[in-house]
Amino acid sequence: MKFIHETLPQRVVFAPGEAPSAVAAEVGALGGAKVMLIASEQEAALADPIAAAVPVALRHEDVVMHVPVEVAARARQAAASCGADVIVTVGGGSTTGLGKAVALTTGLPVVAVPTTYAGSEATDVWGLTEGETKRTGADPKVLPRSIVYDAHLLTTLPGELTVSSGLNALAHCVDSMWGPRADPIDRVLAQEGIHGLAAGLPQVAGDSASIEGIEKTLYGAYLAAVAFASAGSGLHHKICHVLGGMFNLPHAQTHAVVLPYVLAFNAPYAPEAESRIAHAFGSATAREGLAALRDALGAPRALRDYGMPADGIAKAVGPILKAVPAGNPAPVTQADITALLQAAWSGEEPA
Amino acid sequence: MKFIHETLPQRVVFAPGEAPSAVAAEVGALGGAKVMLIASEQEAALADPIAAAVPVALRHEDVVMHVPVEVAARARQAAASCGADVIVTVGGGSTTGLGKAVALTTGLPVVAVPTTYAGSEATDVWGLTEGETKRTGADPKVLPRSIVYDAHLLTTLPGELTVSSGLNALAHCVDSMWGPRADPIDRVLAQEGIHGLAAGLPQVAGDSASIEGIEKTLYGAYLAAVAFASAGSGLHHKICHVLGGMFNLPHAQTHAVVLPYVLAFNAPYAPEAESRIAHAFGSATAREGLAALRDALGAPRALRDYGMPADGIAKAVGPILKAVPAGNPAPVTQADITALLQAAWSGEEPA
Repeated sequence: MKFIHETLPQRVVFAPGEAPSAVAAEVGALGGAKVMLIASEQEAALADPIAAAVPVALRHEDVVMHVPVEVAARARQAAASCGADVIVTVGGGSTTGLGKAVALTTGLPVVAVPTTYAGSEATDVWGLTEGETKRTGADPKVLPRSIVYDAHLLTTLPGELTVSSGLNALAHCVDSMWGPRADPIDRVLAQEGIHGLAAGLPQVAGDSASIEGIEKTLYGAYLAAVAFASAGSGLHHKICHVLGGMFNLPHAQTHAVVLPYVLAFNAPYAPEAESRIAHAFGSATAREGLAALRDALGAPRALRDYGMPADGIAKAVGPILKAVPAGNPAPVTQADITALLQAAWSGEEPA
Repeated sequence: MKFIHETLPQRVVFAPGEAPSAVAAEVGALGGAKVMLIASEQEAALADPIAAAVPVALRHEDVVMHVPVEVAARARQAAASCGADVIVTVGGGSTTGLGKAVALTTGLPVVAVPTTYAGSEATDVWGLTEGETKRTGADPKVLPRSIVYDAHLLTTLPGELTVSSGLNALAHCVDSMWGPRADPIDRVLAQEGIHGLAAGLPQVAGDSASIEGIEKTLYGAYLAAVAFASAGSGLHHKICHVLGGMFNLPHAQTHAVVLPYVLAFNAPYAPEAESRIAHAFGSATAREGLAALRDALGAPRALRDYGMPADGIAKAVGPILKAVPAGNPAPVTQADITALLQAAWSGEEPA
């Protein structure tokens, strides 16, 4: 048993139906008197009751996906102009990401109120896009001081988005079992995350306003992010990163399709992961548990359905082989990756 | 699902056989150039190889149980005199506690190297004793920045001490299931802690130099402390606190005796705790798992064997009733506590 685990400081508040008072308490504890509240136009209605509960100096709606550097610069300027002492974000990953971009240069504390299952709120990772290039990094300054999860803010999230971002969170959990810095603490958090997602997602898929289902899914997505930030990207994320960049595939669907193939590939070499994932699903094997959840959710099945060309398999193998993380449980050959991609492309059962 | 969980920042390093280089790395990361190394005379031999690996400005051996205020004052003075910039503690709870006392007033960062299963290294709780009175408090300054666990430092710990401090850690886990601030994250960490202790303790009891057994026990004791610091004292610790103070009973033995009675009392009202504890033990019920572990370890069985008088039962009931934590799963009456104490006093099977 040899590992280093770094626990990051954060308060996490589960407050169903009570986001305004919970956010006000967190802002108060930070001594916030001039809040910059970041929420896109689409998120404005969700943010209004929160805005009414805290001393807002500025509402900032200028949110763009992947946080372009110009958008970050405008937000930093706005924070300086209004003399903000606390940033509150209400929204999905792009909104949280913009708050982090402001925190990165200003050191301002962030209170994050997520309205999706993206998980960015529980990591110290920031991302900024310049032209076509996305730079990322990790910095303690960007980790939100507090997260307020209010399930009532997610009752209007479209079902398809719930399924795809929920399966993305599940991929964080599975890859946390064998990421390059994975340790037993990451694994136990990831196991609990899978348990939450496996219980919550079918409930939300059946009834998008199920508070109980949303709560469990938020809890699972939170733990997924905590575990993944600590463990680092494993084989699954490396494969998806190469495929996404090479063929411009949709992020969440790519993860949803590829995950069972990586699980089937690694699990025989990772008995602890196999046992923990199976336990989390309450199934005989990890693969059976994942398959049953995917069936229940009508998950995406084949990369060819999302725009990957057949001749892309041969193109992707080389870059993926170069990206295989140190310490992946299964040894990885060119033939292995070719077979894995072939199966994921056509949607056949994992070998 | 409504709770607030605060995660405290800490690095934890499991480095079997490598404490000197691991401590040197942590001290280096903190920019330490003048280390005050605290280790009692009894711990000196364990501390020597670590002292050789870091820039020691002062070795401080003046360690006394329960951290008397005079002892803390001398250590603070010594830290100031030698211009210490990092404190390294090598030892059990009293040694860690003295490091925390210095950190409390100086803000110096602490690297803790535990040589028992006390768990103090993973909490932000300090304690100081003035005369007969022990004051405690929580302060972020006293939480060690890093812990280095090296199983090889515990191979000479006497077996009896391993069993009693291991069962004390187990009590932290069990009480974390229903402490006043207990949340699902505390419960999953406590469950993993029980799993580690239940696997490790019998190995160490059978072979006090079993590195594998010590590692699992350290891992369990670490998680126990993390969960307990977050969840707060539950019914078990309140009962033990009253009994210990009233009859001057030995700490670890009191915990070992009382735990199964509190578990039997609360578990029927705490289905999640019951299920998690049973899973952690791999047993049909939580009680059976605990009973089997206690049998395997030859755990203490009756308070009367440790100096509690028969008429003490009636005396203790009132103070215990006053100390019952808010939100204890089972309702608690005078008759309940009387029956529980009667059983624990005589060592009969939990009802």
